[in-house]
Amino acid sequence: MTSALDIAVVGATGSVGETLVQILEELSFPVATLHLLASMESAGSSVMFAGKKLKVREVDSFDFSQVKLVFFAASAAVSRSFAPKAHEAGCTVIDLSGALENAIALVPEANGQRIAELPQPALITSPCAGAVALAVALAPLKGLVQIERLQVNACLAVSAQGREGVSELARQTAELLNARPLEPRFFDRQMAFNLLAQVGAADEQGHTLVEQRLVGELRQLLEMPQLKISVTCIQVPVFFGDSFSVALQSTCPVDLQAVNDALDGADSIERVEPGDYPTPVGDAVGQDVVYVGRVRRGIDEAEQLNLWLTTDNVRKGAALNAVQVAQLLIKHMA
Amino acid sequence: MTSALDIAVVGATGSVGETLVQILEELSFPVATLHLLASMESAGSSVMFAGKKLKVREVDSFDFSQVKLVFFAASAAVSRSFAPKAHEAGCTVIDLSGALENAIALVPEANGQRIAELPQPALITSPCAGAVALAVALAPLKGLVQIERLQVNACLAVSAQGREGVSELARQTAELLNARPLEPRFFDRQMAFNLLAQVGAADEQGHTLVEQRLVGELRQLLEMPQLKISVTCIQVPVFFGDSFSVALQSTCPVDLQAVNDALDGADSIERVEPGDYPTPVGDAVGQDVVYVGRVRRGIDEAEQLNLWLTTDNVRKGAALNAVQVAQLLIKHMA
Repeated sequence: MTSALDIAVVGATGSVGETLVQILEELSFPVATLHLLASMESAGSSVMFAGKKLKVREVDSFDFSQVKLVFFAASAAVSRSFAPKAHEAGCTVIDLSGALENAIALVPEANGQRIAELPQPALITSPCAGAVALAVALAPLKGLVQIERLQVNACLAVSAQGREGVSELARQTAELLNARPLEPRFFDRQMAFNLLAQVGAADEQGHTLVEQRLVGELRQLLEMPQLKISVTCIQVPVFFGDSFSVALQSTCPVDLQAVNDALDGADSIERVEPGDYPTPVGDAVGQDVVYVGRVRRGIDEAEQLNLWLTTDNVRKGAALNAVQVAQLLIKHMA
Repeated sequence: MTSALDIAVVGATGSVGETLVQILEELSFPVATLHLLASMESAGSSVMFAGKKLKVREVDSFDFSQVKLVFFAASAAVSRSFAPKAHEAGCTVIDLSGALENAIALVPEANGQRIAELPQPALITSPCAGAVALAVALAPLKGLVQIERLQVNACLAVSAQGREGVSELARQTAELLNARPLEPRFFDRQMAFNLLAQVGAADEQGHTLVEQRLVGELRQLLEMPQLKISVTCIQVPVFFGDSFSVALQSTCPVDLQAVNDALDGADSIERVEPGDYPTPVGDAVGQDVVYVGRVRRGIDEAEQLNLWLTTDNVRKGAALNAVQVAQLLIKHMA
């Protein structure tokens, strides 16, 4: 066991950062000193950790040589500005924004063994919630099903947009129920009782950043760099819990019993039996696993496997995975 | 032009039936006498048509030999009980329940030419909203793109469950916003701010009736009985407007410009340019077309075409299609 680490969390006042600090405490992560950092606007507030009120300080003036490990749970712009500085100062960086091109995407349940080959200090990406959920669910099936192509429809909760997304859905819903005129603010149109078919701007080919991130990270996590993955990410009027409809095309007939056994035997998966199915609100929220349901072959097509996944996007999809990566790191350093 | 027809609408008090009666009036459909029918519980109420209050009578005691055309906009059980009687009495039947096995699925924009070969009186299915939307959007592409496989994720509005679905989502939402304990009634769990990954019971293979109906009807409509179609239907907290994320696998690279031109030139399609995208609430509701957006190829895969469709499930997806089928019938009879 390594001795306790000096750690910094950048973005400590955001919903993912706050959950991350809470998980460090829950899992009794060996923290020596914890530095909570945020942008100028959010600095000055306090966050509870291990029974103490910790003040949140400005990231701009922080000396990263004081710590060994830094979690970046802020925006891509913040990661781009400060992660290279932290890395140069000797810190291992676990970035949740996806902004660091040279970082290695890690999900312990999928490609945890890669930790051994990382240069120190390491530059690590804790992937987007979709890549985490899909990697956790598909890694146990890799040896079992020849994956030829993945087709994913991702239904993202508004908390994927942070606290502003959550409060905007609540505000819009209340206005509509009270028959007041709706004025979208955070989202560019009505989010309540509606689906937004595009999350963020699309490139010239029509793909959004979040879709490209999911594909790139999932290919890394499954160690299948050429895998054909098609994905549509939509924003749904759900507060917490991302859900994924997955169709996996295989080169040979899928053995459903073997798939169910592999899912049941894997870490961080809760399989729901046919007849029932998991939902974001009823199952995923607040939990540490990826729920897998509606496990079935295609209609008239034995070479296809269909799955429905749902997971807490803030917890398992983000903060918890980052801490689990850190746990793996200290185990490896030990 | 044929002279006006004597018509019956079974299920006239439901949301689809009521919309259908309204559309008959809007489109100046040549109605001689209109008979409105419903089950015992709903009979006795009135529905407005052409400035007159029409009384809704019990379907059980109706003599179908009085009419030439009957729309069945009630449950599958009602269609199974009364549609064969109506057909034997010499009526052309347009059934919206999907319960009649020998009926021919028709969407004028997709397979309207089949009307010429139907035995008289005809037994016709107006397909489920998903099959209508997909047939309208894909029929113009059939000659252009070699369709090898379709992958569909259908996000169904609660109005797919009739008025009870709509009022239950409203009630659940209000209770949650007022911090009152939630007691699901119509849906078996929380529908507000949640996704239900399964609509209705699944068979032993894990497929639901609505998924099988969509696949069977779409194969008929596209006249591709062997087409591989994989579909997941989920229930989303949206009142009106079904949406579909579609991935079409082709055997050769997709010519996007040709696809866009074909969509722009087709009937009943409104294509939304990249940069924008259609939503059920903002675009589809109350409209007579299928909105198509996010037209793009796969990530690193030129042989894939991705589309996002949204349409008014009660109107274009059900009532309007049934009336358009009837219009085609009288044109053919003329």
